[in-house]
Amino acid sequence: MKPIKVGMLGLGTVGTGVIRIVEGHQDDLQRKIGSAVEIVKVLVKDKNKPRDVSLPEEVLTEDPYEVLHHPEIDVIIEVMGGTGHAKTWMMEALRQGKQVVTANKDLMATSGSELIEEARKQQCDVLYEASVAGGIPILRTIVEGFSSDRIQKMMGIVNGTTNYILTKMSQEGASYDDVLAEAQALGYAEADPTSDVEGLDAAYKMAILGTLGFHTNVSMDDVTVKGITSVTKEDIQYGKRLGYEVKLLGIAERQDDSISLTVQPTMVKATHPLASVNGVFNAVYVYGEAVGETMFYGPGAGEMPTATSVVADLVAVCKNIKLGVSGKTGAVAYKEKKLKTDQQISCKNFLLLHVADKAGVLARITEIFAQHEVSLESVLQHPNQHNPAAEIIIITHDATKASMNNVLETLDGLDVVHEIRSVYRVEG
Amino acid sequence: MKPIKVGMLGLGTVGTGVIRIVEGHQDDLQRKIGSAVEIVKVLVKDKNKPRDVSLPEEVLTEDPYEVLHHPEIDVIIEVMGGTGHAKTWMMEALRQGKQVVTANKDLMATSGSELIEEARKQQCDVLYEASVAGGIPILRTIVEGFSSDRIQKMMGIVNGTTNYILTKMSQEGASYDDVLAEAQALGYAEADPTSDVEGLDAAYKMAILGTLGFHTNVSMDDVTVKGITSVTKEDIQYGKRLGYEVKLLGIAERQDDSISLTVQPTMVKATHPLASVNGVFNAVYVYGEAVGETMFYGPGAGEMPTATSVVADLVAVCKNIKLGVSGKTGAVAYKEKKLKTDQQISCKNFLLLHVADKAGVLARITEIFAQHEVSLESVLQHPNQHNPAAEIIIITHDATKASMNNVLETLDGLDVVHEIRSVYRVEG
Repeated sequence: MKPIKVGMLGLGTVGTGVIRIVEGHQDDLQRKIGSAVEIVKVLVKDKNKPRDVSLPEEVLTEDPYEVLHHPEIDVIIEVMGGTGHAKTWMMEALRQGKQVVTANKDLMATSGSELIEEARKQQCDVLYEASVAGGIPILRTIVEGFSSDRIQKMMGIVNGTTNYILTKMSQEGASYDDVLAEAQALGYAEADPTSDVEGLDAAYKMAILGTLGFHTNVSMDDVTVKGITSVTKEDIQYGKRLGYEVKLLGIAERQDDSISLTVQPTMVKATHPLASVNGVFNAVYVYGEAVGETMFYGPGAGEMPTATSVVADLVAVCKNIKLGVSGKTGAVAYKEKKLKTDQQISCKNFLLLHVADKAGVLARITEIFAQHEVSLESVLQHPNQHNPAAEIIIITHDATKASMNNVLETLDGLDVVHEIRSVYRVEG
Repeated sequence: MKPIKVGMLGLGTVGTGVIRIVEGHQDDLQRKIGSAVEIVKVLVKDKNKPRDVSLPEEVLTEDPYEVLHHPEIDVIIEVMGGTGHAKTWMMEALRQGKQVVTANKDLMATSGSELIEEARKQQCDVLYEASVAGGIPILRTIVEGFSSDRIQKMMGIVNGTTNYILTKMSQEGASYDDVLAEAQALGYAEADPTSDVEGLDAAYKMAILGTLGFHTNVSMDDVTVKGITSVTKEDIQYGKRLGYEVKLLGIAERQDDSISLTVQPTMVKATHPLASVNGVFNAVYVYGEAVGETMFYGPGAGEMPTATSVVADLVAVCKNIKLGVSGKTGAVAYKEKKLKTDQQISCKNFLLLHVADKAGVLARITEIFAQHEVSLESVLQHPNQHNPAAEIIIITHDATKASMNNVLETLDGLDVVHEIRSVYRVEG
């Protein structure tokens, strides 16, 4: 059988893992696909840079068009990242009739529908399992495993860096700044950690999960995003005392056909399976109308886990080539997008307030919740020994975002409320 | 587009769920498949029995051949269970060129290779996602999600009944007999619970997982099986004190190309993700050479979860019909089967011994382990207040099954050892 020829854009961590798997598992891959897989061209920035994998000299190139326009290449793997060149070159690959596999969440979240549209026109596949939750095959699970069900809710710990930071803060009582510095020293956080700690990376992934889970084109603008930079060790300790762990959750929900997507630090009940997902691990919790509760857990990043997902996509793409069904098996976003309004979005909330330590304050505050029809699950008040103010912790029952915004605005204007210290969504 | 016509054998719990999903999700299914799906014939034992779903009178039949030989039926769904008629009729369905979807673990574990062989001959699909871990799409995860990886170990809590019993025993300190009676009253255990509590149900599922994960035909004879009937509340309490939970684990391992499969009550370290899978939930832990640790969690049984998996298979089968690739996408068992010998199987072990309460006993016992080259991780001895004997708990390091058998045989012959009370494998 004629071997399937592959070109790759990028040879960083993930690209190196891809080479290792394709070389190391050649026999298995051949059995599964029905022909050999050969990596014939790899785009790199500098051909002379020393590499962890050895490739014949003629395989490396600094010219993208030697890969994109290579007449024998069937599949292009994009593992260079970013949204500039990566987009231009992937579009060109599709126009050349090449199948595409990518690990690029930023690109798929921002230009996914455009790429998929071009792929459909060219009868090509675009697969991107590695773009969400590294080694967990969550995209095919959602598209194929739950093809018969209606997914109502997806909650994901989909960013390893922030989960590492929050886990350390929880387990060691350490501060955000200290743990971030440690994570940077260990290579778990980048020198510029913005995309991770501000929740953008997680939002990219939730946009992709939302698009596939809800069959509609979710864009980054549809995801409300809050990062973890304002999470304090005090918040985490208060949460623990009440039976919660703070996690940066991406939450995508559907009710009837209206959806909402958010990324935010969330108090997760300690008994919920997401609460014990620690360190750099990822997990995606999926609630389906018929199936109920499920959760998928695994490594969210790293050379080999991410490469596993890239090569699994490569296997799928190669099988489609052999079967003559390229471009015909992909998921279709067939539903019109309807976003929930603030009147429709609803959740439980955790509030930490610093208030004047005098009689009648609690009554005034709880009255404001009642006025806005937010009912309370529990209220805890105790004097703060380091502070002339008292601290009040309130956990609400389900309340709409609109009502909660009104409550917060009114509390903010109240003279006895010194500070609305923290507000968290509550899950589990 | 011409609708795809489906026949079903059986209309019990799962069959009823299938009807509900196919009717309730018709619009979504049509979008995903590209044509409508119609259930045209359903085999039942008694046409006049009242049902939870209403079907036109002409759909129900008591004659299997009205389903199997129906000229317009494309796909047969088998949800009747058992290995007698079910096998005969599925073979006949395949010979008639029908695609087959089944939830039947017993049949797939005992006659899977025969059915798959016939399907290949007829260019038909046989899919059976629902046969393992109900609502968790674990089979496609193993076949497709990890197609690029080498799976080294799968550990599954794949029987909800026994996990419910062990969870209750652990959480409430109750005895096996009491919890079994309660589970029977609640419908979580059958009147004759043998297949569940003796580990056979779990063994069927491990044979299927082993076949797919290791690409070789694993049969029931290859799985060593021990059930939970001898697990005592004392064992569970001792385990908890040492940081373990007792779970009935199916364990399938590969080293180089030799495999071993077992189902047995296992002491699972409390920090391992499997230890907190409670009640009737199922979970499958998969360790891949490249991906590392992953776990997939969800409902293991029930009308709607199981039906979700059946209909997800139906969607896949229908897509293959539309693409003209029926019978061409299945997994192939391409590896020769090599079973590990007792010298190659190795694990940590937990032993609870009742011994004579006198000087020198511990030394004699530990010497026996040393003679057989089994090293010890920890040893605990304390007098038993209800018993003239002392109790010794020993946890070994990794030891081969052969060595452990020698140790146990020697201990058994020792006058100071009154009883080898319990032996558990240890994981995590």
